[in-house]
Amino acid sequence: MKCLILAAGKGSRLRQRADSKPLLKLLGVPLIERVIRNAAEAGIREFVVVTGHQEPQVREFLTGLARRLALPIHTAHNPEWQNSENGRSILAARHLLRQEDSFLLTMADHLMEPALIGRVLDAAPPPAGGVLLAVDGEIANPLVDREDVTRVHRDDDRITAIGKGLEPFDGYDTGLFLCTPGLFGALERSAERGDSSLSGAVARLAEESRAGAVAADGLFWCDVDDEAALGRAEEALLQRLRGKQHDGPVSRLLNRPLSIRISRWLAGSPVTPNQISLFSFALSLLAACLFTLGGYAALALGGVLAQLASIVDGCDGEIARLKYQGSDFGGWFDAVLDRYADALLLFGLTWHAWREGGAEPALLLGFAAITGSFMLSYTADKYDGLMRRLESGKRGVSWRMGRDLRVFLIMLGAVLHLPLLILGVIALLMNLETLRRIWICRPRTTAP
Amino acid sequence: MKCLILAAGKGSRLRQRADSKPLLKLLGVPLIERVIRNAAEAGIREFVVVTGHQEPQVREFLTGLARRLALPIHTAHNPEWQNSENGRSILAARHLLRQEDSFLLTMADHLMEPALIGRVLDAAPPPAGGVLLAVDGEIANPLVDREDVTRVHRDDDRITAIGKGLEPFDGYDTGLFLCTPGLFGALERSAERGDSSLSGAVARLAEESRAGAVAADGLFWCDVDDEAALGRAEEALLQRLRGKQHDGPVSRLLNRPLSIRISRWLAGSPVTPNQISLFSFALSLLAACLFTLGGYAALALGGVLAQLASIVDGCDGEIARLKYQGSDFGGWFDAVLDRYADALLLFGLTWHAWREGGAEPALLLGFAAITGSFMLSYTADKYDGLMRRLESGKRGVSWRMGRDLRVFLIMLGAVLHLPLLILGVIALLMNLETLRRIWICRPRTTAP
Repeated sequence: MKCLILAAGKGSRLRQRADSKPLLKLLGVPLIERVIRNAAEAGIREFVVVTGHQEPQVREFLTGLARRLALPIHTAHNPEWQNSENGRSILAARHLLRQEDSFLLTMADHLMEPALIGRVLDAAPPPAGGVLLAVDGEIANPLVDREDVTRVHRDDDRITAIGKGLEPFDGYDTGLFLCTPGLFGALERSAERGDSSLSGAVARLAEESRAGAVAADGLFWCDVDDEAALGRAEEALLQRLRGKQHDGPVSRLLNRPLSIRISRWLAGSPVTPNQISLFSFALSLLAACLFTLGGYAALALGGVLAQLASIVDGCDGEIARLKYQGSDFGGWFDAVLDRYADALLLFGLTWHAWREGGAEPALLLGFAAITGSFMLSYTADKYDGLMRRLESGKRGVSWRMGRDLRVFLIMLGAVLHLPLLILGVIALLMNLETLRRIWICRPRTTAP
Repeated sequence: MKCLILAAGKGSRLRQRADSKPLLKLLGVPLIERVIRNAAEAGIREFVVVTGHQEPQVREFLTGLARRLALPIHTAHNPEWQNSENGRSILAARHLLRQEDSFLLTMADHLMEPALIGRVLDAAPPPAGGVLLAVDGEIANPLVDREDVTRVHRDDDRITAIGKGLEPFDGYDTGLFLCTPGLFGALERSAERGDSSLSGAVARLAEESRAGAVAADGLFWCDVDDEAALGRAEEALLQRLRGKQHDGPVSRLLNRPLSIRISRWLAGSPVTPNQISLFSFALSLLAACLFTLGGYAALALGGVLAQLASIVDGCDGEIARLKYQGSDFGGWFDAVLDRYADALLLFGLTWHAWREGGAEPALLLGFAAITGSFMLSYTADKYDGLMRRLESGKRGVSWRMGRDLRVFLIMLGAVLHLPLLILGVIALLMNLETLRRIWICRPRTTAP
């Protein structure tokens, strides 16, 4: 299925931020790229973009993006973009879409999560010759500018009226449509009656009972129209990073809130997730070296550095998600570096404890702590898989003992000057948890 | 599809080994259980077994097996088993099979790998009203008793003649058929002409051009008729364990040949794979304790014990494969215990080196060796996955540096009294190989 994206407008309310609104960067990624990537994630494999303002720049950007994504992105120009409503832009792409049974339609300034696009694609086909609109019935949605948004009134899954300032209303136009080519005729009929906007055409279709609605309640979408909306969208994208499964208590309460702030700041830079992983590893290495120096000052500073490394370590995944830079290799590379970092930190602590006297206990506890930590990582996949199966139906996987707690304990041990005690605590916790996992994963029925 | 298994005969040439041939244990598992489990692995979900000699014992065993496998196993008794050919046994099960479009037919004393059964199931349907026979064209197959086997002559994929002592011939009857109910009529027609054997009926069908052939060349099958054949079958099952992918050089040349001998001996006992894993771990623990005692004698003895543990560690997987006791948990449990065993052995060596003087080098090298060993295991899945993709099409995954080499080096270090040197070698090898894997797994094209 093709996806038509309207990107002709000037976006005058955001002109201080960028010459072209589709190319305006939100957390390091242009709006139009976010729209296209989200749709591609939902399964769309071909795009048609209507350009207008700053046509050459937008077209050049899309040419590069099509190459990077290895997906065809066609453009159609609307020469009347300056003095016409958005319905005219849709008609400018008519020749590229009239052969389709149906096509997706959205705007370059409407962000939405792939699940919302997926819901529209999975919905019943649009009424014959009509359109299907994703409607957000959550009237209190804080991301919506209630004065500026296009309102919708529904009767069951039919749209009965649509327009700005509509009263009464029971939902918002999310800007995502599944259209039949019948839309083109409706646009012409509406234009003849003096309204050449998309909303006008949908109002005509609503009168003919040919405008359906799909509920978008609870899914993320956001119309980026002005500075305030831009800020809301940025904040929403950042807060969505908190929802990561598996986040342990230290991560949830301490690391994640701080790493999100760092990620917001890093997003605008060209720094890649793998570079962040390496930087975090370097911080851990430095912390481990400080541990081995001896003396309380170096030990405590190393502890703080280790915790900082753990915080920065959250940013690689966050930047990867914010900027569509995630990869299998990236996640694995980060995990491998984390294992080395853990081993180095615990070795540093062991070395410190050994130098301060108590060689045998230091060696024994240090060894047990390193082994237990590795075992916890080694058994994580199997344990997570089992937990997912056992908890399928529930919303997510419950918390598991992991790296956030381990590094936090190392930091505590360093700052409180109790390296030996904390090695013992880590050794005990990590190995007991490993044994518990083996016990949990054991076959429940006797094998034949 | 149902599978008919003939198990009525007495097996008089093997009567010294067991009262009932179907219940005769080969490497700890009764022949009939092997036949049923192999067919179940190939996808068969329902069985019909014709009993005769020792009917109550065989039926009772099959009732228990059906419960263990959670698969229906029906029985049909052939009261004339003592003075009739095997065609009579097939007719005894006629009432259970006449509704089927087609069914599989084999014998309780014919072992074959699931891939052979799968090949017959995937082959073209049998000729209308006829049968399809898996024919082994490998005339030099060392598992075949050339005097006793039923010979086959083919014209392309049609059987033209079948019988013992047939000349000329170009293949062997493997005892695996895909039949239509037309076989029952052929058995009756053949019996009228004085031959009530299955081969006789197939010869009749061959005359009518209704006996097809599927090539079984290169796949394992074996007719267990006498002491010599039993020995050949046992040896073949054991040698098939050698083919395990990933086996490193130490495993191939030293561990596997010895572990197979131990497994042959263990197969008849009720010892489970998980018990073997635990026993191997206990040996490693003992070896590590010996390392920490100090003195060359304990060190060398520990080294030998470590290598013995590594050899025994091959038996859990071998017994699991030989006795159909493999499980996801078993493989994982073994891997988790191996990681603890590795850590303990390296820690013991570190402790020994530290006591002998050279505390700092021992601590550093010991830590690096333990970390590198863990990292090698931690990165194995990803690396193997990549290698499988890169080498798909080739026969198997190439050798990778693994536990067999690690434990062999530990043994060498102990026996040669060079603990510090060997810790350094292990540290270097394992960490360099980890870095190489990261390099190999890196994305080959620049991420967008």
